[in-house]
Amino acid sequence: MMSDDQFVLRAIGRVESTLTDAASAPKQGDEGAPDAWLVFDLEVSDALRNLAAGDEVLLLTWLDRAARDVLAVRPRSDPNRPEQGVFSTRSPARPNPIGLHRVTILAIDGLRMQVSSLEALDGTPLLDVKPVLRGIDER
Amino acid sequence: MMSDDQFVLRAIGRVESTLTDAASAPKQGDEGAPDAWLVFDLEVSDALRNLAAGDEVLLLTWLDRAARDVLAVRPRSDPNRPEQGVFSTRSPARPNPIGLHRVTILAIDGLRMQVSSLEALDGTPLLDVKPVLRGIDER
Repeated sequence: MMSDDQFVLRAIGRVESTLTDAASAPKQGDEGAPDAWLVFDLEVSDALRNLAAGDEVLLLTWLDRAARDVLAVRPRSDPNRPEQGVFSTRSPARPNPIGLHRVTILAIDGLRMQVSSLEALDGTPLLDVKPVLRGIDER
Repeated sequence: MMSDDQFVLRAIGRVESTLTDAASAPKQGDEGAPDAWLVFDLEVSDALRNLAAGDEVLLLTWLDRAARDVLAVRPRSDPNRPEQGVFSTRSPARPNPIGLHRVTILAIDGLRMQVSSLEALDGTPLLDVKPVLRGIDER
């Protein structure tokens, strides 16, 4: 049973990537991550309308292989750095392991979307796509 | 019972704001939103270490008053604009209504943190705080 402080996320698709191992994956997209495909569920196809190749978007994912009971980490997994609270780091380990990725759409083919430089692992559940906010007069 | 495609979020705190009504709230933080307080749960206090006044952070919230079954909207609630898929808009209505807010920390007092220009409503559950990514050589 859900309490008032719990909410249920539903995956809207999955990542298809050549990255399969967290230990060898780049820590951020701009650190050599490969292009990847997002495969969306048929139920959300209407929500994908108006997205196009060339758009810069924010992709939200569920980091399903991350620890949720870790509140402090050594940044970059560097043993020489002191522990920091996870909210001041981009560690996947955190109470709600939501991944946030800024990517460019390279191609769209029905429910499949290719994006640039994504550090998420193969099979990672997709949660949301949001446009990058433009200036106030272009909204 | 949770399926493989469902995940449980837990609130880590709440927003305290003078904004109580979605209809009159600004649509984005930089459109006149007030400063607000974030009140974190004691369980995550270790995760808050190393955050300080002046830091720019990304705040993730659960938009608990948003519709989840809406896949297309008229942007800015403007009846003259054509419907768009929600993934190309910042509408709170979307399958997983996670709010993403870029704010500056103004003050920290124990488990309470004041932030600038937040368009989230009073009582909105908090999910995560992430630092804004800096250049590769400063990570």
